[in-house]
Amino acid sequence: MEQTVRQAAQLAKAASMGMATTSGEQRNAALHAMAQALRDNTAGIVAANDADMEAARAKGTPAPLLDRLMLDAGRIEGMASALEDLAALPEPLGVVQQERTLDSGVRLQRVSVPMGVVAMVYEARPNVTADAAGICVKTGNACILRGGSLAIHSCLAIADVLHAAAVSAGLPENCIIPVRTTDRSATDELLTMRGLVDLLIPRGGAGLIQHCIDNATVPVIETGVGNCHVYVHAPADIDMALNIVMNAKTQRPGVCNAIESLLVDREIAPELLAAVLPALHGAGVVIHGDEAAQAAGAAAGVPIIPATEEDWATEYLDLEIAVKAVDGVDEAIAHINRYGTNHSECIVTSDEDAAERFLAQVDASSVYWNASTRFTDGGEFGLGAEIGISTQKLHARGPFALEALCSYKYLLRGDGQVRG
Amino acid sequence: MEQTVRQAAQLAKAASMGMATTSGEQRNAALHAMAQALRDNTAGIVAANDADMEAARAKGTPAPLLDRLMLDAGRIEGMASALEDLAALPEPLGVVQQERTLDSGVRLQRVSVPMGVVAMVYEARPNVTADAAGICVKTGNACILRGGSLAIHSCLAIADVLHAAAVSAGLPENCIIPVRTTDRSATDELLTMRGLVDLLIPRGGAGLIQHCIDNATVPVIETGVGNCHVYVHAPADIDMALNIVMNAKTQRPGVCNAIESLLVDREIAPELLAAVLPALHGAGVVIHGDEAAQAAGAAAGVPIIPATEEDWATEYLDLEIAVKAVDGVDEAIAHINRYGTNHSECIVTSDEDAAERFLAQVDASSVYWNASTRFTDGGEFGLGAEIGISTQKLHARGPFALEALCSYKYLLRGDGQVRG
Repeated sequence: MEQTVRQAAQLAKAASMGMATTSGEQRNAALHAMAQALRDNTAGIVAANDADMEAARAKGTPAPLLDRLMLDAGRIEGMASALEDLAALPEPLGVVQQERTLDSGVRLQRVSVPMGVVAMVYEARPNVTADAAGICVKTGNACILRGGSLAIHSCLAIADVLHAAAVSAGLPENCIIPVRTTDRSATDELLTMRGLVDLLIPRGGAGLIQHCIDNATVPVIETGVGNCHVYVHAPADIDMALNIVMNAKTQRPGVCNAIESLLVDREIAPELLAAVLPALHGAGVVIHGDEAAQAAGAAAGVPIIPATEEDWATEYLDLEIAVKAVDGVDEAIAHINRYGTNHSECIVTSDEDAAERFLAQVDASSVYWNASTRFTDGGEFGLGAEIGISTQKLHARGPFALEALCSYKYLLRGDGQVRG
Repeated sequence: MEQTVRQAAQLAKAASMGMATTSGEQRNAALHAMAQALRDNTAGIVAANDADMEAARAKGTPAPLLDRLMLDAGRIEGMASALEDLAALPEPLGVVQQERTLDSGVRLQRVSVPMGVVAMVYEARPNVTADAAGICVKTGNACILRGGSLAIHSCLAIADVLHAAAVSAGLPENCIIPVRTTDRSATDELLTMRGLVDLLIPRGGAGLIQHCIDNATVPVIETGVGNCHVYVHAPADIDMALNIVMNAKTQRPGVCNAIESLLVDREIAPELLAAVLPALHGAGVVIHGDEAAQAAGAAAGVPIIPATEEDWATEYLDLEIAVKAVDGVDEAIAHINRYGTNHSECIVTSDEDAAERFLAQVDASSVYWNASTRFTDGGEFGLGAEIGISTQKLHARGPFALEALCSYKYLLRGDGQVRG
């Protein structure tokens, strides 16, 4: 086992050297070939997915997870067209980011280059296999794809189709390598393969991400956990606030850019909550609240569970919310910087000074004034793709895509200069 | 102990919130005040350094290390003027890196922001205290400075002077915090303070850096280890090659951008080595070599120690070199990518195609054509400062300074947009 994953990483490293010298045209042609191969192999991929679905159902896997796991012709077409979209994006490699002549006369250029070997560790979404392979091909990286055991047949089927198509299109053998075992130790090996794995990206639940952070010695981009807030400041349009809160909480509660808490200025709490609490309750949202929220709930006939300290720190990822009154923007900022996860945060206000203070002082990847946190997404942000949403500050923050899978190097051309 | 370092980090975190809202003018004024305070406190800092020097001499510390540790009025003036140079650099924060209106009408900006809390872990050079504090002030970061036990009195004296000056100039209390204990566990605590330490930078020997990489759960920028090469390709100017090899090996052998190995095309090995080996030997360089180098040494009357596999991987950091003949540029690239540390690599050739292949395929932060590896330095590269030389590909590569101590955030301003 240990041998197998290490060998795979060594093969990927060798492939990464070849990938670094492919042209953008070659990589884009490979993306088109990969898209077509997915379409041509729809039946086989669906059959592999059926095996995963059957095993998952037999295990009593809950419905939302089954939905993430499920592939059909439409979803496979979605993966294929996403690969074609990648091919159409501007070339990320060889971009001259800086250029100057040093005092010594040496000519310096800083140019974008691939990372090398990117390892992707993910869970039940088989489409991540195609997204990750595609973005790595676009950026000239070799990739190691470690899908979750629930999706293993689907992931291997997709990866094998993509690898064959990429190699047929002229990319190096082993440029896309799926991990074939479901043994958990394979992840731990990837986490510690310094010199072979240049970047590891975990995508999945908080447990997986924490495990990677705690055990990685290779560089990691932390993704995903989102304990996000909407804060409604006293001078706010109540209808706008209601609309944003409902969208941010209920439009898709299981994703990381949905909110988990509502903060509201104490002076407008009765008025705002008289509108918001019945709407949340009507949408099936379980509400935890402080005393102010409990009072507003009693007035509106909406049941409120007394909130505990733990609620402020909880990412429910479900139709559930914590509601708290605060005394102004400073308390809201302090609460968010204490309990938030540096993901997406929103202020609703008609006061520009308060808004700008919130934008400047809240420590998060994406800070909103009068718009829903649900916009935090690579596609919405115009990145053309997304491989994850980073909650760290090193290298990539917020939704990230091509740029984050590139590094740079300095090229220095002289005519015999030495240092004096 | 544990309490103390954690408390320090909590204080630094609180200070970082205040630092993030200071203006560039305030931070530059603080840098000038810090410079003046160093000058005004020269006697006290030298006295503290005397205590470190005395203890170091009593321990039998070798002369090169004593030289790194030593401070006098001239070196303190050097630290002061470096702080003033930082003040003169362009403002790194609040730079609008991207700006666009999303399909929804939400206006997006990506702006540069501080990292937050930067922890610097270093060894015997007390001047790193001032360099790190200065660059963190410039970039709006709070910093925790963990100097080595050998330099502890010097580091604390410098840090206390700088902190007092920064606070007098209006920066937040605790924006510069030295670790006051020499207990090694303080480093390990810093390495695992997720949520409090946003970035940790180790500067020092390979042992320190490896320890940080192995144990860190906070984001780290790996610095420093340099197993660098000069490769002399067959069509090369022998005088230029000799000049570059001598500069790269002997001008300052104890630094990371000095070379450790010389590779030479087999067909010109006799001619090149007939010139290079006596010059190296004459400069006091101990030479390890393969069979070709041994033959050339015998012909030139220069003693050559037979090289072992280990020599190719060794960073001597001393007047010592390994010499090997290769069969052309592909073998040279393969050797460097196998044994190098992604730091600085050089080809000497008059063949542009070979040079460009080397520049493209060697996986290192800084790749040279006909110039000495010794130029890899923040000052030489025109960065205006340097906090280290990164050998990783994430976030910062090669010499890094202000830009690497900044992150970015997305600011999104709407008028009630929600996601459909």
